[in-house]
This record gives sequence, structure tokens and C-alpha cells, in this order.
Amino acid sequence: MDTKKLIAEFIGTLWLVLGGCGSAVLAAGYPELGIGFVGVSFAFGLTVLSMAYGVGHISGAHFNPAVTIGLFMGGRIDKKDVFPYIISQVLGGIVGAAILYVIVTGKQGAEIGTFAANGYGSLSPDGYGMTSALVTEIVMTFAFLIIILGATDARAPQGFAGIAIGLGLTLIHLISIPVTNTSVNPARSTSQALFAGGDALVQLWLFWVAPIVGAILAGAVYKAVFEKKQ
Amino acid sequence: MDTKKLIAEFIGTLWLVLGGCGSAVLAAGYPELGIGFVGVSFAFGLTVLSMAYGVGHISGAHFNPAVTIGLFMGGRIDKKDVFPYIISQVLGGIVGAAILYVIVTGKQGAEIGTFAANGYGSLSPDGYGMTSALVTEIVMTFAFLIIILGATDARAPQGFAGIAIGLGLTLIHLISIPVTNTSVNPARSTSQALFAGGDALVQLWLFWVAPIVGAILAGAVYKAVFEKKQ
Amino acid sequence: MDTKKLIAEFIGTLWLVLGGCGSAVLAAGYPELGIGFVGVSFAFGLTVLSMAYGVGHISGAHFNPAVTIGLFMGGRIDKKDVFPYIISQVLGGIVGAAILYVIVTGKQGAEIGTFAANGYGSLSPDGYGMTSALVTEIVMTFAFLIIILGATDARAPQGFAGIAIGLGLTLIHLISIPVTNTSVNPARSTSQALFAGGDALVQLWLFWVAPIVGAILAGAVYKAVFEKKQ
Amino acid sequence: MDTKKLIAEFIGTLWLVLGGCGSAVLAAGYPELGIGFVGVSFAFGLTVLSMAYGVGHISGAHFNPAVTIGLFMGGRIDKKDVFPYIISQVLGGIVGAAILYVIVTGKQGAEIGTFAANGYGSLSPDGYGMTSALVTEIVMTFAFLIIILGATDARAPQGFAGIAIGLGLTLIHLISIPVTNTSVNPARSTSQALFAGGDALVQLWLFWVAPIVGAILAGAVYKAVFEKKQ
Repeated sequence: MDTKKLIAEFIGTLWLVLGGCGSAVLAAGYPELGIGFVGVSFAFGLTVLSMAYGVGHISGAHFNPAVTIGLFMGGRIDKKDVFPYIISQVLGGIVGAAILYVIVTGKQGAEIGTFAANGYGSLSPDGYGMTSALVTEIVMTFAFLIIILGATDARAPQGFAGIAIGLGLTLIHLISIPVTNTSVNPARSTSQALFAGGDALVQLWLFWVAPIVGAILAGAVYKAVFEKKQ
Repeated sequence: MDTKKLIAEFIGTLWLVLGGCGSAVLAAGYPELGIGFVGVSFAFGLTVLSMAYGVGHISGAHFNPAVTIGLFMGGRIDKKDVFPYIISQVLGGIVGAAILYVIVTGKQGAEIGTFAANGYGSLSPDGYGMTSALVTEIVMTFAFLIIILGATDARAPQGFAGIAIGLGLTLIHLISIPVTNTSVNPARSTSQALFAGGDALVQLWLFWVAPIVGAILAGAVYKAVFEKKQ
Repeated sequence: MDTKKLIAEFIGTLWLVLGGCGSAVLAAGYPELGIGFVGVSFAFGLTVLSMAYGVGHISGAHFNPAVTIGLFMGGRIDKKDVFPYIISQVLGGIVGAAILYVIVTGKQGAEIGTFAANGYGSLSPDGYGMTSALVTEIVMTFAFLIIILGATDARAPQGFAGIAIGLGLTLIHLISIPVTNTSVNPARSTSQALFAGGDALVQLWLFWVAPIVGAILAGAVYKAVFEKKQ
Repeated sequence: MDTKKLIAEFIGTLWLVLGGCGSAVLAAGYPELGIGFVGVSFAFGLTVLSMAYGVGHISGAHFNPAVTIGLFMGGRIDKKDVFPYIISQVLGGIVGAAILYVIVTGKQGAEIGTFAANGYGSLSPDGYGMTSALVTEIVMTFAFLIIILGATDARAPQGFAGIAIGLGLTLIHLISIPVTNTSVNPARSTSQALFAGGDALVQLWLFWVAPIVGAILAGAVYKAVFEKKQ
């Protein structure tokens, strides 16, 4: 295992959480001029787009345990890389959340509330139940992994993967923030739940299970259907 | 006919409807933070951008019967591919709409209303009549096909077509959502009309006729004018 | 002179006016969900981005008399192409405005007001005077041409010019819509003034003079400074 | 030292300040249709994206003293270029601010207020204190330089750096405008403080110190970790 790969995943996931969740916590609801869900969606996507070109040549730029598992299922990475990658991602996410915590609490009277935690039912921004959350997270992660596996396929145009994947994540947020606050990434969800506590921790299981299920399905489908010889 | 091409068109059109129409139904009108027409426009465009790099190397990434017909008119695809592609697209769109239906109705008290149906007159978001709708859908699809035929021309820079076409579709939505809710894609319109019912079904003809007319014109013009030897 | 080049410029400028001005007239002020200046800025930029890949390999994708003149000053195009290009652009812009007129007036009770005309003083969206308008249009067009001349320079990365130039035009609109409604393009201004009439026609001179002055300066600077041998 | 490099840095930084700060001052708060922080974030990013393709082949497109210092720390540029670059950037920024001043004051009754100055405490848009400002500016600039050093690494896909870096700067603004009005660029901060005066000048030190600290750290980390032979 190459240390610099793990540092790249650590920095990338830190950036995803600090940038994506940070934009949501700091800037989404600013009066009149706030960035809303459109801005948060672009922020999440651009963390991946920017760091895909920043450290993609080092680690492949997963920044997400579901992506790592999906790429393993699709036959793109070594089994021995899976766990170290996931641990680096979770740690990076937590440090990103900690930095965000320091920034937020530097404002007088600031409270973090539920941070940018993911959830369903009472924690869903628009009150969607568990079934909606499961379907949304599975399908969104499935599509995300098809995009990732396809855009990094040797038959796809080279160099564009960071744009397709980053803006694909923007798209996923444009659709699904009202449902689950959008995860598709267990490291992102874990980092926020640890600070939010309460129901966010209780519901955290769904944001590991659903993205991983979607990613496994996508890896299997891509390999079986799109890589089969005709 | 290659099965994996049809599966790619199915998945891509599913993603276009789930992503584009999903963002409209789930996130556009969210109080204060909603994504509005800007967010919906980017969502539609990014479904195409992301899946163009995801499965474009498999099927060419049409995701739209009018595109398939326009590319046939422009001499880019085989006659035998036209009907299978269109059937896959319509089925993919319907499954995308069905997934969206499951998600939406997982919110207590939710009703789908007219979903993200296209329409004119009483179904036009801003009350535009049938003539405006016809002109808009013909001209928008015409321009869309010129962009597609041009960006995939051997003389254009290679690899960029997914960006040009995806963001071209974003542009088309930025212009025309208030007129017809923007179709330029009969599969997208059909998928929504089936769930919305009523007038959306009655008006569905226009969203097959106008995009196909625009696409045929563009295919003919591109071939006759831009590919002629001087 | 190659006819297909002129048709490409005609279609591209038609698209710029229909898309850019169309988004402003049809979608900017839609209640609650409207696209605002952000959406209009992206629309203008994406007309150029999309048609740069659509017909750039045919005509070079100017779509703007000031761009044509600036490229001539920079030594990039032949003198004999300048006038035919400009005439095609102005005609394309007018037809784009006419199509927009047909769409807009297909809504009951619709009036076009000043359309998307450019102006200063009473016609400036935020009440800026003539000096602000002159400075803005000269400087914005100067920068636009530096971007164009640079991005299409043989030393720049190949294929990216359409993205840089299109999003550069988006940027220019993000800055300057409140000042002049943003022209940097005499064909665009002319097309709107003809339909708006009144003061828009009286002020039209500025939107020919200022963009052309900015473009000539940029062409001269780029050639003298950035192409000189050291 | 090559004069045309300094002119490129001068023009690019002028464009960054005029475009980024200009969009904030002129268009952010326009009633109903204003571009808000989303539009300002895109404007800043697109100044860099557009001029990276415009003059990147001349000077490398730093437009920012912290970037120049970070690239020097990362071993990418010559020591003799550092000071001339920084001086050109500061001068370009000041001229950009002066042009903006001329435009703004061409509106009757206009006052520049604090312009688009950076600040903390009473000058922070949302009331964040000095610690939040320091952490934000150091971490944001650190990430910015990792993106820059990575995207221009010979191992990264060639030609995409301008997109990754420009949209990376958009992202940084989406996160941090409410905290410090976002600097990560001492030339940008200086240009605004000179016109705003008062506390903006008193607080200017932070917007030199923090970005440079972040940039130095990033240059050292990138060189030590990501360029080390395994």
C-alpha cells in the first residue's frame, strides 16, 4: 500500500466534506444572497471535480467508500486497497467536519444544529420517509458508479472523467437534497453524524447500506453488461 | 443489434427523466432554498453530460427519440438501430418516472399533480399557446441537433461533445421551461404524461411531432450544407 | 467566400440572440422560480459554448461583429471575410429576434416592452450613465477578445477554446447586466433595438462603437505584446 | 524576466478583480434578479478559467501572489520570477479596482461602501471572528494550491488545469464568502482595501498572511508527499 495514495484520499475526502457540507452550513441560508441548494449542489460536485484533477493521478480520486467498493466490484482496483482507502476517507471526512466545526463556532451565538447530516423522516429536509430514502440513495449511487466506471473506461474520451463525475455529483444533489440531504457517500454521512449526534447517528446505517448496495449493483452490471465481449 | 447498446440507452434515458424531471418535482419549489428553473436546467443538461461520458462509448448516448431520428437523417446511424433505440428510450423514461413516483409518494400527503409534464395553453407554465409551443419545440430541437451533429463531427475537437451537448440542453431549458416546460424529447414527455394523465396525454402528440420535425430539418440541413464538399 | 461559413455564422448568431435574449425575456422574471441574471448569464455563454462545438469547425464561431473585427486586427482572419461575416451575423440576430417575437406574443396579453435591448441612462437596468456604459462595454469586449485570441492561440491547449470563450461570455454577463444589459456584441444589440424601437435605437450607436473599440484594442495588444518574439 | 509575462499577470489580475469584485458590487444584490453569492462565486472562478486559457501559455496564469509563492515552494517556478509577478498582480488588481470605481460611480447617488473588501469581525459578511477567518483563509488557500499543483502536474490529464483551478476557485467562494468575503488572494484584497479604506486596511494583514501560509504549506506538502519516489 502506497502511503501517498492514502494521504490523497484523506485530503480529497476532507475537501469534499469541508467544501460540500461547509457550503451548506455556512452559505446556503444566508439572507437574500445565500447559495441555496443550487450552490450546495455545485459545491459538492466541484470538490470532486477539483480534487480529481488535483490528486486523481495519485489515488484515482475516490473520496467515498461506496465508490471504492463499486470500483472493486467492477474489477478496477485491488482487494488489498479497499480497506485502507475506506479508513483514510472516513478519517479525512471527520477532520473536514472538525475544521468546519471550528469555523462555524467562531461566529458569536452560532449553533451547529444537525450540521449537514443526512436523514429520513424527521431528518429529511422535506419529510420523506425511509423507503424514499433507501430508493433514492441506492438509485443515485448506482447511477453515480455507472458514470464513474464509464467515464474512466479506456473506451471513453481520456481526461474528461473528473468533469463528468464531479458534475454528475452536482446533478445528484440537485435532485435529492430535499429527500435525504443527499449522501451517496458513507464517509460524508459519518463525518456529519458524529458532530450532529442524536437521530443522525441512529439513521447512519442507511447511509452506509444504501450507497454500498447501489455501488455493488452498478459494479456488477457494468462488468457483466458493458464489458462483455459480443 | 447489440443488446448492451439498448441497455445503455435504457439506463441513460431513465437517468435523464429521473434526474431532470426529478429535480423539477422534488427540488425546484422547495421554500427559500429551492433550485428553481436554473437548477432544473442544469439537472437536465447534466444527466446528458454525465451519461454521455458514462455510456456514450457503448451506444452513442442519444437518450431521446428525436436525437436518434436526427442522427439517422444526418447519415450517422444505421436504419436498423432507429426503432430499437426509440423503444429502449421510451421504456427507460417510463421506468425513470416510476422510480420518481415511488420517491415522491414516500412523503406524507404528497401528490404528483401534473408531474413534470410538458404542455401548452393551460399546461404551459406561463400560459403560452400552441403556436408558441410548436415554434419553440421545433426550433430548440433543430438547434440541439445542429449542436449534436457538429460536436460529434470528425472535424470538431474530439472528446468535448458530451460537454457541448449536455450544456446545450441546459441552455434549452433556461430558455423554454416557461413555454412548454421544455421537452425536445418525446421519451421524456411520454414518461410524464403517462403518470400525469388528463390533458398531458391529450397534448402529447405535439411533443412527438415538433421535436421530430426539428430533428429531421437539422439532420437534412447539416448534411446538405455543412458536409457538402466545396 | 464559402457559403457554408456564412450559414454557420447566421445560425450561430440566431442561436445567441434567441437563447440569450430569449432566456432574459421568457424566463428571467418568472415568479419564484425564474432564472434571474445568473440564468441569463449562463444562457448567453452556453449559446456560444454549444455552437462553438456545433459549427466552430465550419466558420470559427464568431457570432459577433466585434469578434470578427478583433480577430482581423489580431491577424487571424482574412480581410475579405470581415464584411460578409458581419452581414450574416446581423441577419441571423434579426431572425433570432423575430422567432423570439413570435414565441413571446403567443402568450395572451404579452407585450415585448424593450425586449432585451441594451442601453444606458433610462435604459440601463440599474440606471448607469453613458460613461459607465462606454467604459464597461469597451473593457468587457477587450477582455473577451484577449480570451478569444489566447484560447485559440496555437500555444494554448487545443479543443478548450469553446469552453473558455463561452464561459467567459457568461462571466461578462454576471458582471455587467445591471450596467448596460450587456452587449459586447453589435449584432445582438441591433436585433433587439429593431424590435424595441424608441431610445433603444437612439442609443444603438454606443453598442457598435464601444465593442468595436475594445476589440480593436485587444487585437492590437495581443499581436504586439503576446505574439512578439523575445 | 520576460515583459510579456508581467503584462499577462497584470491583465489577468485586473480581470480577476474587475470580474469577481465587479460582479459582487454591481450585480449581487440587484432586486429580485440579482446574482447572489452563487453568481459571484462563478464570476471569480470564471475570471481565472477564462484567462487561464487566454494568457496561461504566456505567464502560467497565477493572478495571485499566494499562488506564485506556492508554486515557488512546490519547485515549479524560478525564484527570480516571484517578486516581479507579485508586483504585476498587485498593480493589475489596483487598476481593476479603479475601473470598477469609475463604473460604479457613474450611477447617480452611488456609494462604494466597503467595496468588495475582505474582513473579519465587523467586516465579515456574517459576523465570523478572526480565528474563523484565519482558519478559513489558510485551509482554502492550502486546498487551492493542492488543486493547482496537481492539475498542472505532468501526470495529470493535459489541458484541463484551467477548468479545475477556475471551478476550484468558484467552489472556494461558494463555501467562504459569508466568513471573510473570500480572499485566498492578497492582490484582490489589497485592491479593494485601498478603495474601501478604514477597517479594511487595518485587517489587510490577515489576507496577506493567511493565504501565503496556506500556499507555503501546500507547496511543501505536495513536493514532499506527492512527488516523492516510492
